[in-house]
Amino acid sequence: MNVTVFGKGNIGSAVGAQLEKAGNQVDYVTTKHKADTVADLVILAVPYAALASIAKEYQQKFAGKTIVETTNPVNFKTFDSLDVPADSSATAQLQADLPDSHVLKAFNTVFAANLASGKVGDNPVEVLTAGDNKDSKELLQKAFEGSDLDVVDAGSLRRARELESIGFLQMTLAVTKQIAWTGGFAVVK
Amino acid sequence: MNVTVFGKGNIGSAVGAQLEKAGNQVDYVTTKHKADTVADLVILAVPYAALASIAKEYQQKFAGKTIVETTNPVNFKTFDSLDVPADSSATAQLQADLPDSHVLKAFNTVFAANLASGKVGDNPVEVLTAGDNKDSKELLQKAFEGSDLDVVDAGSLRRARELESIGFLQMTLAVTKQIAWTGGFAVVK
Repeated sequence: MNVTVFGKGNIGSAVGAQLEKAGNQVDYVTTKHKADTVADLVILAVPYAALASIAKEYQQKFAGKTIVETTNPVNFKTFDSLDVPADSSATAQLQADLPDSHVLKAFNTVFAANLASGKVGDNPVEVLTAGDNKDSKELLQKAFEGSDLDVVDAGSLRRARELESIGFLQMTLAVTKQIAWTGGFAVVK
Repeated sequence: MNVTVFGKGNIGSAVGAQLEKAGNQVDYVTTKHKADTVADLVILAVPYAALASIAKEYQQKFAGKTIVETTNPVNFKTFDSLDVPADSSATAQLQADLPDSHVLKAFNTVFAANLASGKVGDNPVEVLTAGDNKDSKELLQKAFEGSDLDVVDAGSLRRARELESIGFLQMTLAVTKQIAWTGGFAVVK
């Protein structure tokens, strides 16, 4: 299938390469290269701070599409909290900004190096996704069939909050050198 | 060293057995068998609902001690939220109830079967702990040296919130059969 990936940093490049390995056609959108149209599956591999402006600019083009956001909205000044309200998430905020789209959270609980390698230590990478539209989660799973990444349904959009907690804690463990940036949380089935 | 374990359910039995394997003397406290005195290290392997009354009953005996609480304060009616405010944690509540004790969070991110076996899949068990007293975290680490469990410092008491998010999500993944009760989050260093 066709997939549009916003951002070509560590996350966007790793996710895009896995999508291509699975046989998808990937189009990248960057600040220098805007998109006239987007695919049915869009992955936003951009920082949290960029979500609101992208939502505003692309709201109409995103209507009816599956929009996957990947951010860890960590307060990088203090590294002691998230920059979203305690009872919300970046994903819930984006869904509110894109009422005509199906927003999913995914990829934020896996470090970029592991998205690229498909391994966390000796474990396969299980990408946790959360969102309210079942078809969108199945579309995401299907897109990665044949890649090194397996997509696991972690529940409704409300669970994005827990995914952001996991992403945040994982980053604090790496910053404090308790784990390597190639380590982190593996999901053992 | 001497360790007092409150509760002899799945968690208390598994943690107690690991402590004994490491050469500690473990005394169990249950509803039928109260404690006249407690050790410097106390592990509360009891449900969230029992914490407040234990704190009230043992506040003086717990003064100056390291109190490790292990709960997942999940709303088991809805399985859709935690029973603590979004910006707090069971651990923070217990610390407020025990101002003269050093409260830690630990063990809630590892299923009971894995605390017993010392493995999550093929990975060793890394027990994440959070709390504000460094000496208390070192005491906990020392108590488990020689057991199958490794204790990792996950930061300040504020991080208990993220540990509870991880425990909660892990339980929802098992309840929805995405993972087994012998699986879950492994911490890869």
